[in-house]
Amino acid sequence: MLSDIEISRQTSLIPIGQIAAVMGLSPHHYRCYGNTRAKIAINAAANRPKQGKLVVVTAVTPTPFGEGKTVTSIGLTQALHRLGHKVCACLRQPSMGPVFGIKGGAAGGGYSQVVPMEELNLHLTGDIHAVSSAHNLAAAALDARLHHEQRLGAEEFTRQSGLAALNIDAERIVWNRVMDHNDRALRSIHVGMGTNNGPERDCSFDITAASELMAVLALSRNLVDMRARIGRLLLAFNTAGKPITAEDLGVAGAMAAILREAIEPTLMQTINGAPCLIHTGPFANIAHGNSSIIADDIALRTSDIVVTEGGFGSDMGFEKFCNIKTRASGNAPDCAVLVVTLKALKSHAGIDAEEIKQPNLAALKQGFVNLQWHIANVKQYGVPVVVAINHFPEDTDAELRWLQQQVLASGANAVAISEAFAQGAKGATVLAGQVLACLTKPRHFKPLYQPEQGLMHNLQVLAERGYGAAGVELSPQALRDLTQIIALGGEQLPLCMAKTQMSISHDAKLKGAPTGFILPISRLQLHAGAGFVTAFAGNIMTMPGLGLTPGYLKLDINARGEIIGF
Amino acid sequence: MLSDIEISRQTSLIPIGQIAAVMGLSPHHYRCYGNTRAKIAINAAANRPKQGKLVVVTAVTPTPFGEGKTVTSIGLTQALHRLGHKVCACLRQPSMGPVFGIKGGAAGGGYSQVVPMEELNLHLTGDIHAVSSAHNLAAAALDARLHHEQRLGAEEFTRQSGLAALNIDAERIVWNRVMDHNDRALRSIHVGMGTNNGPERDCSFDITAASELMAVLALSRNLVDMRARIGRLLLAFNTAGKPITAEDLGVAGAMAAILREAIEPTLMQTINGAPCLIHTGPFANIAHGNSSIIADDIALRTSDIVVTEGGFGSDMGFEKFCNIKTRASGNAPDCAVLVVTLKALKSHAGIDAEEIKQPNLAALKQGFVNLQWHIANVKQYGVPVVVAINHFPEDTDAELRWLQQQVLASGANAVAISEAFAQGAKGATVLAGQVLACLTKPRHFKPLYQPEQGLMHNLQVLAERGYGAAGVELSPQALRDLTQIIALGGEQLPLCMAKTQMSISHDAKLKGAPTGFILPISRLQLHAGAGFVTAFAGNIMTMPGLGLTPGYLKLDINARGEIIGF
Repeated sequence: MLSDIEISRQTSLIPIGQIAAVMGLSPHHYRCYGNTRAKIAINAAANRPKQGKLVVVTAVTPTPFGEGKTVTSIGLTQALHRLGHKVCACLRQPSMGPVFGIKGGAAGGGYSQVVPMEELNLHLTGDIHAVSSAHNLAAAALDARLHHEQRLGAEEFTRQSGLAALNIDAERIVWNRVMDHNDRALRSIHVGMGTNNGPERDCSFDITAASELMAVLALSRNLVDMRARIGRLLLAFNTAGKPITAEDLGVAGAMAAILREAIEPTLMQTINGAPCLIHTGPFANIAHGNSSIIADDIALRTSDIVVTEGGFGSDMGFEKFCNIKTRASGNAPDCAVLVVTLKALKSHAGIDAEEIKQPNLAALKQGFVNLQWHIANVKQYGVPVVVAINHFPEDTDAELRWLQQQVLASGANAVAISEAFAQGAKGATVLAGQVLACLTKPRHFKPLYQPEQGLMHNLQVLAERGYGAAGVELSPQALRDLTQIIALGGEQLPLCMAKTQMSISHDAKLKGAPTGFILPISRLQLHAGAGFVTAFAGNIMTMPGLGLTPGYLKLDINARGEIIGF
Repeated sequence: MLSDIEISRQTSLIPIGQIAAVMGLSPHHYRCYGNTRAKIAINAAANRPKQGKLVVVTAVTPTPFGEGKTVTSIGLTQALHRLGHKVCACLRQPSMGPVFGIKGGAAGGGYSQVVPMEELNLHLTGDIHAVSSAHNLAAAALDARLHHEQRLGAEEFTRQSGLAALNIDAERIVWNRVMDHNDRALRSIHVGMGTNNGPERDCSFDITAASELMAVLALSRNLVDMRARIGRLLLAFNTAGKPITAEDLGVAGAMAAILREAIEPTLMQTINGAPCLIHTGPFANIAHGNSSIIADDIALRTSDIVVTEGGFGSDMGFEKFCNIKTRASGNAPDCAVLVVTLKALKSHAGIDAEEIKQPNLAALKQGFVNLQWHIANVKQYGVPVVVAINHFPEDTDAELRWLQQQVLASGANAVAISEAFAQGAKGATVLAGQVLACLTKPRHFKPLYQPEQGLMHNLQVLAERGYGAAGVELSPQALRDLTQIIALGGEQLPLCMAKTQMSISHDAKLKGAPTGFILPISRLQLHAGAGFVTAFAGNIMTMPGLGLTPGYLKLDINARGEIIGF
């Protein structure tokens, strides 16, 4: 079989304007970036009814072997397109961190891809860079203001600048800097050293996918909403303990100006020419893990079926889809697709890389509890669920048969074997049929908790019903954070859990479907712009690092400017 | 008169494909980014003869009042276009640092602008972000390699990774990180703190305009040249004192991949529809200060006259144009335009903001030495020079008359009053006529020095003949650097001086045309990828800071997504 980049490059692309035309969009609704990308105006479909059905693709708990969730999302989209349905995929833009760090590309794979894959993986239309830029402008502005106020004193500062002093408390700046790379050395740094660069202070860089501004972009309904959310961003506290926002610093307008084009989703296409809206890129372990509300909204008004995905397992991106994104958008899932592989379940039974491709029904049975847990998890939101078994060449009929039977016995609405990777649209046709059948069924969506019930109550609900924990425990720091967030008016915001994606619990080593554990919350952070409170379950890194043999080693360009090694 | 953004917004734009068509480019030569921007393929005009004449716009020594060099460059382009000539401007992309820091926009001004000005000032087609991203990938890769090799030891590192250990000396890493903002707090930082993030070390961020990678992009002739230059980038030394390049680290290919689209110039238009190629953005005080060779090359093959500019005074960008850029491109200037204002000359006589608009012939006479110096400086390169007096409403006829006479008496080939700001093309018609006349004259270009004569010799030549110094003095550090650079094979590279732009000397306080000073070189740095050696004249900041009332304070968007406050 050809490599992903070879398949991508041999695809005959449809001019992107034609893809837009199929969605009923006219040239004044979008701006082309070459023939392969188009920025869609956020109000392009505003006067059309929101009639599409929403399919959210999720997965079992991730393993090192890769479950193929994006392959399945794109394959399903391709299959529905091939069957003649008006379908649109809504996906996140890949961060360069993982692109150069691990995977070397994230655009699906095999014959289920968004193309051209190298454009999707590098810059696309620059939105992630815009988020970094706007985010870091606020950080530079904050440190500069601190510098000038300390240098001159409040009174003299006001006399010379005409601005009221903010009296920023250098020890209580909560706004980090960001970078779209895996840069371990920037996790914990000390800035402002040298002469006249101060004051010195400890701070850090997060990866851009974890920026609150990324969440703002993803959760905004329109420009006015985005501008207001940016104004509410909490950057620091003053020496009297009062919050300082981006609006207070006078930087919110400039940040919005930087994001003026990034608020528009980018239209691309799948290998067989189905439309795909790429927009925003929050990770699902350290952020809310779903693509934008604006892209979904456009897709729901221009298509009959919209396929999107939440990051990682259903305890991560899908939970946040239901409890954060749906609350902000009003768009609940009509159906969920839950992706699983035989390898993933064996891995949850403790089988390692060397044995993972061997037939092993016993291990499959043991690891099945993980899939069972995720089926039940999706069902508790009142959403019908189709399990997609992402097929690999080594899968045996006996294993597949056993798994299909068990899935149906566990309450899933349907099960299908997907060969989207090897066969593209054709390989996902059975899955598409099951999804179509599911979409005719009634749906009784209910989120896991009501934000109005308060943070402490909802933390408990999320821990126990969202992850199967026996309870939740707040560190002294988390308790102090909670008191402060309540004082700042954040008591009734939804929760965004930062936790490992490698277990349903907070502990990456607990495979399968752990129970009895206590979820430890180390700290809480108010994100008044995004409109949620982040809870950190244990020690969660918000800046990844590069491994021993990072993805960038393989990448290069040839003399024609084509990328090789993806 | 309307504001710049109002003028920009009321301009009726020509679809960018039509601008390209006027240059003789077909749709397969470019990719449109909406209707206002187009990325031009680097070989778009490769099979056409290089027949254009090259006009380089430079200026007297900058003052706080602004001399209007870009206004004049664009006004001249507009005037030549209006007169029916095939003309193209080649300009740098504005850095967001100054955009949010000081000026609030850099796209010309008044009725001489590149439009839409807000697109030019924010992101454009993302090239500067791409440079930041590629630059910082190398930095992250370097720290990660250091981390893993130290954590495991060389032998175990090789065993686990299959890579030879680089044995990076943590004290001798010469590759900084970059950010396209004025961020004082990042000038001097300490990274790698915390657990398992190390080793800890001191380092810094530069502004992206100072990145060697920006110079690489600007000086590359084609993709293969760029890829080779990236491979040569010196990142660090190993513990045995041997250099470690981007090629050694295995990151050069990925960096080139990130810059794959950034190597293409972006086509825009002036207010009256003349083509303008925007490409790269090195500052002229801390970098080589000129737009790209690739853009010039395309323009020289598609136009009869190409107007470009070197940053700051003729001792800065113009010197670097002649001694660095021309050497790499083979394209020498056919004519120079030297921009001056009455205010600038009065400022060089010590007149301050309160008095600067008053008629003051005595001050004008006193400050005239600065202009005189720059006329002689341009002439010593064998380039004909037209002095453009950028007109302001308060200028008196008596002053203008006196200045014009003196300019001609000082050896300039011609002089013209430019009203490009207030009147656009029409206001620069006289200037255009003088430039056209000049282009018919023979030109005897000679650079100031031959790189083959060696760094020490050329530092002396540059100090004495390039700036009028009595000599040059190297600090002990600079002498050590020199020895090392010679050992590394950089002895015969051109020099790129990092010095203040506010004086012909190294001392910003020395106005007019200082003499008798000794130019102090504090350190030297080999830029093997860019192909020059940077010499630092005194303490030069490579990361600006935000001032008391930064440009971002005025910026915002309205509900239609339009930017206000530029």
